[in-house]
Amino acid sequence: MTYGCIVSMKTQPGSRDEVVSILLSAADGLREAGCDLYVVGLSHDDDVTIWVTEVWQTKEHHDASLELPEAKAAISKAMPMLKGGFTKQELSVAGGLGL
Amino acid sequence: MTYGCIVSMKTQPGSRDEVVSILLSAADGLREAGCDLYVVGLSHDDDVTIWVTEVWQTKEHHDASLELPEAKAAISKAMPMLKGGFTKQELSVAGGLGL
Repeated sequence: MTYGCIVSMKTQPGSRDEVVSILLSAADGLREAGCDLYVVGLSHDDDVTIWVTEVWQTKEHHDASLELPEAKAAISKAMPMLKGGFTKQELSVAGGLGL
Repeated sequence: MTYGCIVSMKTQPGSRDEVVSILLSAADGLREAGCDLYVVGLSHDDDVTIWVTEVWQTKEHHDASLELPEAKAAISKAMPMLKGGFTKQELSVAGGLGL
């Protein structure tokens, strides 16, 4: 099975769209880092929560991607617009449609 | 933006693999019902939790899919193996990789 994670984060009020743009701009280089899927969604519950579902070839690919210069740049750019409330669910991906 | 949802459910002990099989068997017909993505994952936190990330062309496509005979059959087959603890996050999908 491949490795997956479902992450949520909360932004400062008014900053969600900008954080989403940063997350999407970082998605470009993910495939060559071993990422099969990266879906960024805006919660309907409020206007500050973002959910990201990721599928990677292995957990090691995921972990290594966080050390890429592009990833570090995106994280440091987004960080001031985030506040607490992170969640992370780690998964073994059994399959489905569209993978 | 397309419609997304992230759902979690808990199975009775020992039943997770069988519920996952039912969910995956139901995935076959989803594309023609308007589903772009359906990812079934097994939580690393325990051995009873399943997470599903779905992306649909619209919320109406998603809602209509629940009325399909195959979906109703899958739900009624899985239901006795589930226990409480359902969660559902509705999303507007901004984009990403692999969609």
